[in-house]
Amino acid sequence: MEKEIHILKEKLARACRMLEMMGLIDHSGHISGRIPESRTFFIHPQQLSRTEVTPDAMAEVTLKGEWVGGKMSPPSESPIHAAVYQARPDVNCVVHIHPHYAILPSIAGIDLVPVCQHGAIFGRVVPVHADSEKITDFEQAHRLARALGTSRAVIMKGHGAVIAESTVEAGFVASFHLEENARLFVQASILGKPMALSEEERERASANTYRPSSIQKAWSYFTEKGRKASIFWD
Amino acid sequence: MEKEIHILKEKLARACRMLEMMGLIDHSGHISGRIPESRTFFIHPQQLSRTEVTPDAMAEVTLKGEWVGGKMSPPSESPIHAAVYQARPDVNCVVHIHPHYAILPSIAGIDLVPVCQHGAIFGRVVPVHADSEKITDFEQAHRLARALGTSRAVIMKGHGAVIAESTVEAGFVASFHLEENARLFVQASILGKPMALSEEERERASANTYRPSSIQKAWSYFTEKGRKASIFWD
Amino acid sequence: MEKEIHILKEKLARACRMLEMMGLIDHSGHISGRIPESRTFFIHPQQLSRTEVTPDAMAEVTLKGEWVGGKMSPPSESPIHAAVYQARPDVNCVVHIHPHYAILPSIAGIDLVPVCQHGAIFGRVVPVHADSEKITDFEQAHRLARALGTSRAVIMKGHGAVIAESTVEAGFVASFHLEENARLFVQASILGKPMALSEEERERASANTYRPSSIQKAWSYFTEKGRKASIFWD
Amino acid sequence: MEKEIHILKEKLARACRMLEMMGLIDHSGHISGRIPESRTFFIHPQQLSRTEVTPDAMAEVTLKGEWVGGKMSPPSESPIHAAVYQARPDVNCVVHIHPHYAILPSIAGIDLVPVCQHGAIFGRVVPVHADSEKITDFEQAHRLARALGTSRAVIMKGHGAVIAESTVEAGFVASFHLEENARLFVQASILGKPMALSEEERERASANTYRPSSIQKAWSYFTEKGRKASIFWD
Repeated sequence: MEKEIHILKEKLARACRMLEMMGLIDHSGHISGRIPESRTFFIHPQQLSRTEVTPDAMAEVTLKGEWVGGKMSPPSESPIHAAVYQARPDVNCVVHIHPHYAILPSIAGIDLVPVCQHGAIFGRVVPVHADSEKITDFEQAHRLARALGTSRAVIMKGHGAVIAESTVEAGFVASFHLEENARLFVQASILGKPMALSEEERERASANTYRPSSIQKAWSYFTEKGRKASIFWD
Repeated sequence: MEKEIHILKEKLARACRMLEMMGLIDHSGHISGRIPESRTFFIHPQQLSRTEVTPDAMAEVTLKGEWVGGKMSPPSESPIHAAVYQARPDVNCVVHIHPHYAILPSIAGIDLVPVCQHGAIFGRVVPVHADSEKITDFEQAHRLARALGTSRAVIMKGHGAVIAESTVEAGFVASFHLEENARLFVQASILGKPMALSEEERERASANTYRPSSIQKAWSYFTEKGRKASIFWD
Repeated sequence: MEKEIHILKEKLARACRMLEMMGLIDHSGHISGRIPESRTFFIHPQQLSRTEVTPDAMAEVTLKGEWVGGKMSPPSESPIHAAVYQARPDVNCVVHIHPHYAILPSIAGIDLVPVCQHGAIFGRVVPVHADSEKITDFEQAHRLARALGTSRAVIMKGHGAVIAESTVEAGFVASFHLEENARLFVQASILGKPMALSEEERERASANTYRPSSIQKAWSYFTEKGRKASIFWD
Repeated sequence: MEKEIHILKEKLARACRMLEMMGLIDHSGHISGRIPESRTFFIHPQQLSRTEVTPDAMAEVTLKGEWVGGKMSPPSESPIHAAVYQARPDVNCVVHIHPHYAILPSIAGIDLVPVCQHGAIFGRVVPVHADSEKITDFEQAHRLARALGTSRAVIMKGHGAVIAESTVEAGFVASFHLEENARLFVQASILGKPMALSEEERERASANTYRPSSIQKAWSYFTEKGRKASIFWD
């Protein structure tokens, strides 16, 4: 169990720095992971630069939002993570980012739909939480979790996105798939109305391109890339 | 006081190099800081490459635009800075940059409005100085300061922007918030008319996302990033 | 012959890493080369990060899709490569990538046409395979090969592209020419309807800008660039 | 005189590598400089990677296009340079590049006009050479020179641009000013019709922002940047 805990913290720290390398996290944004057989999760500290996050730096927070472990305090937006873990027993990783392309449709008041294989995993339309406010209390966080529902991601209007997944690796991969699909959606709109994938296309694409082996392949690629760019601590 | 002066010069030099790293300053553009209890400000020299600015290189200039300290002469656009310090006792840092996205609406003749949390701090509409000319005398500079009014930023049509803040850190952060909001505004326009934040949304966002601790967090993040990229002198 | 085989594997490994450096390959995408006087081709392994591909790592696959050489298994999309080699005796290099701009017209349901010299080599219109699904069996792969026909490239709707060429160097160069033309096509559409090159313009441009010496010049340039960025193994 | 010749070759080699660093030159594109008191000019060799150009590598070519000095042959497009030097005694530096944004208006069939200070130096409208063909003979090159006329730059439809200036430094600076203005022009078009600078604005901007000291400042900045990125030979 101790080893499992350590692996979780290490994956979170790697994912955080990789998301930063990819421009999906900057001075803000965070990724958390549910601690197995526990009512708590790990998240990196509020004030620590996302390029400096290490496994040992993780804060431990309960699903009620109480800070119970680690030397540095968790982000004020921790209720987002806690509320999603409360609402979704299937979720073990929550990512909150401010992805440029993914929030553009919410600014223009239109639906973001899947237009490519990697977008298929987000369903017919990516749901939107209509309030652009920074979320720091549970009342707001529960509303956000309701907007997320059973989806893999929810957009916060003109603000950001929350991604909910079963593993850290999948949370990481789904995060850039969301942005990749949005970038295609927005830029195809220069040419005309983008054609959404049909239900059948979505089902086939999800089954074929989001397997554990695909997720592992993407994780390995970015880990290797990060290593070459010396973004890690080891 | 001597220590305070040194810290100011150091912050300005760091901010200058960080803005360059972020693409907001290139061969031109500058950031200045008011010297406490004085009628002068520091600004980096005209001919010194923005990647080479050090604390010791700062020129000292009076609010009347006279060069009174430092070995290298100040930029010819120094009257911009002087005029803003004259008009705005609350302002201790002035940034003049040529941000790509922020000037696009002025080229198309439309208003730049806040569409995201970070844009909320610029008010209902970012004011525009309608003259695209390079500003090197006080007559022009006073007109620009009037266009700025009590705002945090003013756009110079088809040319650039001036950001006015109470500290160097806030001037730095507001600079990239201005560009971030503009990039969202322009690219959302591919999809439809961007929805401006309401007054209530602007007030809540300003209060929640532009606190001293948020500004410090962003400053630390980019300082750390700059250190890793070896952009500083130390 | 042994030397020829080694050179082929080395070129494929270099091309793979260069396409990754240019953003045309990431965690997925592949380039393969037909083995002379044989019914097999080389392709880099499925699970190996594209930044780690070496000449020795190549898998050998028959035109029927059987894995017959190398320690690591080939990509599940290998039938794409096999089917194109079957259908096109003139083709000795197949590239499958997910180029951002090149797939945008297929998402908007419009034709991608040549608008610049480098786009001229793709004919009047780049053909489209209307199925966005990931291709892992021969039935799909043969349909894709039919959509390709005698062209140099085919777009897979909302998914990717396949480029077919006579040499590894030409396959590499045609890949970024396809994306370069598409980026011009999409962004010119901001201004108005892009004017396609006429048949005469296409013929002159193909003859003048896609000679063996031009291809070699581009290959040398990117090889040198890769060397400076330390992307290779040697 | 020997020293002057050496300085010219050194500036050309630096400018070539800096244009490559800025994405304005890649596997093709070139910059040349007229040799004072001579009917010849220097240009870097056709097959040498633009990241490898050194002062010693320069080819010497007559205004009639004859290769008379240097070990490696000049580009096949050298007639472009020769024809401009013939037609324009005021020109001592010619740049031929393929700038992405600057050619977009010619693909959409609309005029590229100055919308910012740095664009003002190109006059009311940037002239267009309507033939997209690669230019390798004098008949074509003379037509291009006529399209250039007395301007600082001419666009080659769907292909590239030629910039003509009095010094290497100015040729370098005008090259990225052309692209900078075009990028603003194209992206402002997302929002509405870009407003061209008036004649008066153009005159004031040219006089104020394109002085020898401004050109030198930009040259120094990019030289310093190139040095930090280790792009030079020394």
